[in-house]
Amino acid sequence: MARVVTLGEVLLRLSPPGQTRLLGARQFEIHYGGSELNVAAALSGFGIHCTAVTKVPEHELGYSAIKELASFGIDTSFIAKGGDRIGIYYLENGYSVRPAKVVYDRKDSAFSRVSPDEFNIEQILAGADLFHVSGITLGVSENAFQLAKAFMQKARKSGVKVSFDFNYRSKLWSIGEAMEKFREVLPWVDILFGSHFDFCHVLGKKPVNSLDETDILQYYRSLYEAMFEQYHPKYMISSIREVESANRNRYQGLLYHNHRIERSRKYTLDIVDRVGTGDAFAAGFLYACLMNREPSYAIDFAAASTAFKHTVPGDVMIARACEIEQLIATGSCTVQR
Amino acid sequence: MARVVTLGEVLLRLSPPGQTRLLGARQFEIHYGGSELNVAAALSGFGIHCTAVTKVPEHELGYSAIKELASFGIDTSFIAKGGDRIGIYYLENGYSVRPAKVVYDRKDSAFSRVSPDEFNIEQILAGADLFHVSGITLGVSENAFQLAKAFMQKARKSGVKVSFDFNYRSKLWSIGEAMEKFREVLPWVDILFGSHFDFCHVLGKKPVNSLDETDILQYYRSLYEAMFEQYHPKYMISSIREVESANRNRYQGLLYHNHRIERSRKYTLDIVDRVGTGDAFAAGFLYACLMNREPSYAIDFAAASTAFKHTVPGDVMIARACEIEQLIATGSCTVQR
Amino acid sequence: MARVVTLGEVLLRLSPPGQTRLLGARQFEIHYGGSELNVAAALSGFGIHCTAVTKVPEHELGYSAIKELASFGIDTSFIAKGGDRIGIYYLENGYSVRPAKVVYDRKDSAFSRVSPDEFNIEQILAGADLFHVSGITLGVSENAFQLAKAFMQKARKSGVKVSFDFNYRSKLWSIGEAMEKFREVLPWVDILFGSHFDFCHVLGKKPVNSLDETDILQYYRSLYEAMFEQYHPKYMISSIREVESANRNRYQGLLYHNHRIERSRKYTLDIVDRVGTGDAFAAGFLYACLMNREPSYAIDFAAASTAFKHTVPGDVMIARACEIEQLIATGSCTVQR
Amino acid sequence: MARVVTLGEVLLRLSPPGQTRLLGARQFEIHYGGSELNVAAALSGFGIHCTAVTKVPEHELGYSAIKELASFGIDTSFIAKGGDRIGIYYLENGYSVRPAKVVYDRKDSAFSRVSPDEFNIEQILAGADLFHVSGITLGVSENAFQLAKAFMQKARKSGVKVSFDFNYRSKLWSIGEAMEKFREVLPWVDILFGSHFDFCHVLGKKPVNSLDETDILQYYRSLYEAMFEQYHPKYMISSIREVESANRNRYQGLLYHNHRIERSRKYTLDIVDRVGTGDAFAAGFLYACLMNREPSYAIDFAAASTAFKHTVPGDVMIARACEIEQLIATGSCTVQR
Amino acid sequence: MARVVTLGEVLLRLSPPGQTRLLGARQFEIHYGGSELNVAAALSGFGIHCTAVTKVPEHELGYSAIKELASFGIDTSFIAKGGDRIGIYYLENGYSVRPAKVVYDRKDSAFSRVSPDEFNIEQILAGADLFHVSGITLGVSENAFQLAKAFMQKARKSGVKVSFDFNYRSKLWSIGEAMEKFREVLPWVDILFGSHFDFCHVLGKKPVNSLDETDILQYYRSLYEAMFEQYHPKYMISSIREVESANRNRYQGLLYHNHRIERSRKYTLDIVDRVGTGDAFAAGFLYACLMNREPSYAIDFAAASTAFKHTVPGDVMIARACEIEQLIATGSCTVQR
Amino acid sequence: MARVVTLGEVLLRLSPPGQTRLLGARQFEIHYGGSELNVAAALSGFGIHCTAVTKVPEHELGYSAIKELASFGIDTSFIAKGGDRIGIYYLENGYSVRPAKVVYDRKDSAFSRVSPDEFNIEQILAGADLFHVSGITLGVSENAFQLAKAFMQKARKSGVKVSFDFNYRSKLWSIGEAMEKFREVLPWVDILFGSHFDFCHVLGKKPVNSLDETDILQYYRSLYEAMFEQYHPKYMISSIREVESANRNRYQGLLYHNHRIERSRKYTLDIVDRVGTGDAFAAGFLYACLMNREPSYAIDFAAASTAFKHTVPGDVMIARACEIEQLIATGSCTVQR
Repeated sequence: MARVVTLGEVLLRLSPPGQTRLLGARQFEIHYGGSELNVAAALSGFGIHCTAVTKVPEHELGYSAIKELASFGIDTSFIAKGGDRIGIYYLENGYSVRPAKVVYDRKDSAFSRVSPDEFNIEQILAGADLFHVSGITLGVSENAFQLAKAFMQKARKSGVKVSFDFNYRSKLWSIGEAMEKFREVLPWVDILFGSHFDFCHVLGKKPVNSLDETDILQYYRSLYEAMFEQYHPKYMISSIREVESANRNRYQGLLYHNHRIERSRKYTLDIVDRVGTGDAFAAGFLYACLMNREPSYAIDFAAASTAFKHTVPGDVMIARACEIEQLIATGSCTVQR
Repeated sequence: MARVVTLGEVLLRLSPPGQTRLLGARQFEIHYGGSELNVAAALSGFGIHCTAVTKVPEHELGYSAIKELASFGIDTSFIAKGGDRIGIYYLENGYSVRPAKVVYDRKDSAFSRVSPDEFNIEQILAGADLFHVSGITLGVSENAFQLAKAFMQKARKSGVKVSFDFNYRSKLWSIGEAMEKFREVLPWVDILFGSHFDFCHVLGKKPVNSLDETDILQYYRSLYEAMFEQYHPKYMISSIREVESANRNRYQGLLYHNHRIERSRKYTLDIVDRVGTGDAFAAGFLYACLMNREPSYAIDFAAASTAFKHTVPGDVMIARACEIEQLIATGSCTVQR
Repeated sequence: MARVVTLGEVLLRLSPPGQTRLLGARQFEIHYGGSELNVAAALSGFGIHCTAVTKVPEHELGYSAIKELASFGIDTSFIAKGGDRIGIYYLENGYSVRPAKVVYDRKDSAFSRVSPDEFNIEQILAGADLFHVSGITLGVSENAFQLAKAFMQKARKSGVKVSFDFNYRSKLWSIGEAMEKFREVLPWVDILFGSHFDFCHVLGKKPVNSLDETDILQYYRSLYEAMFEQYHPKYMISSIREVESANRNRYQGLLYHNHRIERSRKYTLDIVDRVGTGDAFAAGFLYACLMNREPSYAIDFAAASTAFKHTVPGDVMIARACEIEQLIATGSCTVQR
Repeated sequence: MARVVTLGEVLLRLSPPGQTRLLGARQFEIHYGGSELNVAAALSGFGIHCTAVTKVPEHELGYSAIKELASFGIDTSFIAKGGDRIGIYYLENGYSVRPAKVVYDRKDSAFSRVSPDEFNIEQILAGADLFHVSGITLGVSENAFQLAKAFMQKARKSGVKVSFDFNYRSKLWSIGEAMEKFREVLPWVDILFGSHFDFCHVLGKKPVNSLDETDILQYYRSLYEAMFEQYHPKYMISSIREVESANRNRYQGLLYHNHRIERSRKYTLDIVDRVGTGDAFAAGFLYACLMNREPSYAIDFAAASTAFKHTVPGDVMIARACEIEQLIATGSCTVQR
Repeated sequence: MARVVTLGEVLLRLSPPGQTRLLGARQFEIHYGGSELNVAAALSGFGIHCTAVTKVPEHELGYSAIKELASFGIDTSFIAKGGDRIGIYYLENGYSVRPAKVVYDRKDSAFSRVSPDEFNIEQILAGADLFHVSGITLGVSENAFQLAKAFMQKARKSGVKVSFDFNYRSKLWSIGEAMEKFREVLPWVDILFGSHFDFCHVLGKKPVNSLDETDILQYYRSLYEAMFEQYHPKYMISSIREVESANRNRYQGLLYHNHRIERSRKYTLDIVDRVGTGDAFAAGFLYACLMNREPSYAIDFAAASTAFKHTVPGDVMIARACEIEQLIATGSCTVQR
Repeated sequence: MARVVTLGEVLLRLSPPGQTRLLGARQFEIHYGGSELNVAAALSGFGIHCTAVTKVPEHELGYSAIKELASFGIDTSFIAKGGDRIGIYYLENGYSVRPAKVVYDRKDSAFSRVSPDEFNIEQILAGADLFHVSGITLGVSENAFQLAKAFMQKARKSGVKVSFDFNYRSKLWSIGEAMEKFREVLPWVDILFGSHFDFCHVLGKKPVNSLDETDILQYYRSLYEAMFEQYHPKYMISSIREVESANRNRYQGLLYHNHRIERSRKYTLDIVDRVGTGDAFAAGFLYACLMNREPSYAIDFAAASTAFKHTVPGDVMIARACEIEQLIATGSCTVQR
């Protein structure tokens, strides 16, 4: 079985049920998520052995986060314990003309105060096939950034593939700060997930605001090639999302590999939970890679995985690989009985 | 008031709430259903006197099933009691690209071990206008099949109309086994619900996989005529469902009677609960027949009934006849206040 | 801060959760609403100081209604207490082909037996910018009608603007009774919310049943002009709703002012809760007026407000003005994070 | 199987969940109850055939009440339909030092406007063994009183035993009005449920406020004998409740028959739902009578039935006779597995 | 109507439902509380006009806190807005041998960064009868302590009575820090709520660990007299709680006034929610004082108020004064109907 | 860290919420349990490494069981997959005079068809300190019995301690069948959990029905000694439960070791969930043993663990060792804050 290591923060997500609003909420549904952990959980569901590296406080909320990660089948034996609090985000689901709303309360979390001494990086990476991290971890704190760098460097050195997802969050840090750090780590990256905004910012270009569908491919090709020239990632993967309303989107995946662009099937999606769909996309692609599927199938698997995640409540994808394969094969939604 | 007798198993349905998945579910919503009982419940709601023939275990789960049937107004006085367990099915609702999922656990249920001696068939059918059963009952067990045969034969002899819905379930039995038994009972059937797949299999033809809309009518006509030639049912009723996604379908009813085909209005449906919609279709048609409505109205009532059922949670249709009539008359969804 | 006074009944709304039916419901979700109070609550959310004039019984249900109104920031200090019961309405949400269903049980409510002596109208109106009432209050009882008249007259005299929404309810009274009373109060009205049906009935014309989109504007213009000639309201505001299904509507606002017609953006809406959307429309328009926004913006704000309300469970709009402004500005439903 | 007819109103009970208060409640749990219907439901659970005579409005709330009664196995075929509304009561459960709270809203209910012409009394009573009614029905309205009298008279004439439970409700009518009507019907009563307050008021004596346990029996004996002398009921049944707190009571039953007093076991009860326990007491006694059990067993069955009801949420007892028999036999609360 | 001003933090309380544990919780019930706000809410429920001084962040969680306070009838017009986050505490209810568990996450809350310039203290205190604050506010931050001091000083100067409740929290600060600040403000206090531990620490005595019931009064008397000698509070109020289990306590109130000790009735309490019972005790006493009731009644009202609060879910007492009066008068828990 | 292996079936438990009855239930709460898995989960919570050996079907219900076990920190890597169904039990909680009710539906479960070839017993036991199994596993099927025997024998041979809990279930098998198999495995047992009933049956004595408290110890001593003479277990552990009502029990633990009897503290328990308390008792004792605590502490830890479990909903104990230690140390139930 392939083995993956991820590094990132686990957040407590609190969301009022159904379509009710945060303002005046009487109940919160509890989920635990975090970009890299969402990837780990999805990969575990697909049958990959995943080790999560993170840090949680030594009290009920930290223990609950570990319990949740373990329930997905993630190896939790390298999770550090300490610090005062778990980071929180409050999420109001969007619907129709009302966009989803996120209120972050993640400052001074246990993970933000992580220290490299808390982990034996070599031991953790020993025998791993892939290390995955996202830009969020780089932005959480200087400590987290240093830890991520240490992992990426050692992975590169020891032949563990490095996967990186930009995941730029404007509520976390400025574009300027982010890009500086992204540029620092890009040379170690084998598999790179990003949007045209990310690529432009990294390359120092002014991003285009809205893309006319006809020239998207051409536009992406030029960015991919410029990125490749500078950083040489083996795979670059993007997604194109059209937002009809908060509960109806269209979605398609793009892959650049060996100077070719592959496009996935395009999905029209009624949405149950929008959060974590980018992570399900990354997990889908990584799974197909780890299983040595060819690029065109890999991007199809990534897109089907993200389409499926839109129907699953919570931050985390819950699906087995065969369910994604069936979606790719049939596209059918008829009850089996 | 017209009087109908149905024969079939009542199952305990366990489904996680809303769009949550079976995997990791913390709660089940409880419904009781079963193809023939769904028909009986819908007919009771329309004002028809229905007697359910079934068997449940003598413990809380069996008593709960009876309580539920009684709450729909169904006459439960001929329900046998005994056996060890109630059959179960676990249902995960589908949504968007994710199809609904059914896990059956119905082996060795009380009903599967039913014995013809447990019922006084003549007494039960006395004064009835119609007897309804589906292919599921024929497939549950040899015992159930023998009981169904006994009911159908006696009904035919004593002038009680016989209604039959193929309802082939691949998780229950093979096509071969099913068709053999279907062919055995078809000569007694007056009203027959089925799809082109069913008709083909019965007639020993190879079914077409996907139908182009233009020649559907022609195709169905040829099958109806072949069926009629062989088995002489007075009414044959089918439905055409187009699956846009797990929560959006299009639906239309077809009726063959006196060598004519009638088509209902075509509905576009946002779906709350997909289960039992075929039974609401049958119930709608049977109701209109029992009320001596003309065929074109009957197929409209059947289609409107099934359209309405798609909006009702649970296996069972909850509606009064006037609600269906209003849907046929206005098609309007404006609040009345 | 602008100050608004509203007069009207607060009803207890009891509705089964989600898409479940009233028949056989096991739980009711509790909301409190009432056309004028919905307007007051929405305006409070936008930052306007609102005083609600109503009457509730002196027991837990009456106190709960006051508690709810206070939670919206409404000034509850002029609410009369007495009488036996709070009016109730049972609401089943509609979905797809199934229309919403309302069962009223509001006879002999505390508010219906309100008496003008219970209120010091001059004191209440002192310093107010606007008084709002709807046709429902006029139809609740003769007492309520007399009270409404007293408020409207005194408002007009003392320079407080008068806003009136026809809100004709066929389950409350006949067209004939309603129109007689509407005509009595119209001369005092500055801001008038109504549909072409209302205008026709007031003017004694036969309403057209369905409007072809091309000549709607022309038709409305003729009605507005006839209304203006007779009653001279400064603003007349209407909405055009197309009902695709119980959970999908299209919506647009119309404004007649200074002999010009302004139209809002047209929204396609997936619906969470249809009730109170007309009141959110009125509140949106009144807010923009009170903030001295120009007419074209005011009708856009009204339409965006009602679009947003379709996504909010309960009778009452829960939104801040900046959320509506953002919807007008961007139309975007992307998560901000 | 024995056959019982009951006459009385069905009320919609709305109660906030668990120990939450009415004030500020966000949800109501729905139950349907009514003294005589509670008796009918409990008897049905014990295996007796019960026919409920009542009247409900012709809308969803009335139909829901019928659905609920049918679910208990009650024969609902003689329920009249009409009128505007179903009577309501709001119930806040008590706990510890906080007493339960009831807010009635039952005026002008469908049942209060019942008319004797709506029922074919002779047909309904044909074949019945017992007719049961309580003082609540006599107090609901003059119409209801006349109907009750008609039933009691005809029952007495045709040899159907008459059972009557005083059930005096101070929020419904004054002691004076009640006693006048009680005295009118007492001569027809065979089985009489009442407290020492009831007996005193009927006999025109001043009731004692608190009873010292030692002389309770003596006190009751004197009242029973005075009652017997005047009205000659064959059985008089009372209960003695000591209230330690809102969730802890002690309970014992008393029976006067053939000039002897029988006492039941005394129960200490942790309370889940206090409502309907008096009706479970009556049902328990009636069941044992109908099964021809001896008096000492009958009062034990009544007390065990009421003890059991204290653990069942809702107005209605849910238990089979064997469960009560087991409680009498063992008193044991050990899990059976 | 009397007018009270309180100063203190509002916290978001998150607790898993019923008796479920924090570890592995899937849902949180949301309450808002805070010692002084609990006092304000309880007093509002009793009919006193209360103004809450606090600070909340300018986002959905802050607005929700204000909405909740307004729903209790509290005047929220002097609440400051700003800062990043609302303080949180996670609460697991205790039961039987399992104690309740609290996890605090309140550092760097909006209130902890409050600044005296944000409030016009004189304007807020104008016309007030009483100012109430607890030791928690003094311990939240140096800023909060300075603000509390400013309020207490100005209240003392302008003849507004000052009420203070020690409320020492060991998770917030050390005994040493607390006592230093308590001693600084005690000279301004008129009404003082505290336990023998508090008094001992303030007086520099070693507290006794467990009190034998016989000499409690004597022990308290000596502490009261020492406190009075040093700080001259007019009223000192304490409570004696005996913990039988997490859900069963005994409770009694003590009052020292004019050199006399008054004791309340002693309650045995089954507990629904233990949090906020001390605040209900303070509110009960303050209410009786503000209504000029005599001391013996005031301490009875305080104890009855706290007894009642033990039955109310959430941090906040929900009761009207008449409910407390009824509990004092009757002690009865019989349903009224 | 100590390492424990357990063998036994995982059952799906379905229970209606709170105090509602199975009959007519609308919802089930889902738990997974099973005597040996409950022991494993409790030990995992205490910090012991536990490996569960069991078998589940390859569908959503089996995967959910694994997910649940993993969430407790149990090593699930040796769980076999296959078979058709997961065993079920329906549980109605008891309360007051109403005993809990269990309906089993566990026949033909995946585990009952387990085969010894599916497990590499030596590999699984390698490095383990203890193997635990209960009599339930021996009674599930002949296959399960053979597997248990194989495990016990190999454990004994390879120096892994063997722990056995009689756990006789009358709904599973007869006393005769059970005792025959118990006697077969007892020679391999080091740690034996059982009641005086179990010991009597094993020894062929007639059990006494009720024990007078004074001679319990003497009675147990004689049984322990007879058992020791015959089977030589190092530890024999029993519990004495007095059932006051379904929600109030008293509980004490007994330990026989080195010819001495140790008794634990005696607890009076208000009960949240009675199921799995025996398993928490076993887990508590095993934990203390594995930590090499002395016998008197071990039996105290066992009793405190079981006392704590009575407050935890579900089959499984959720507690950390420090919580049990705190209960032993203080017995206090005061909130820490």
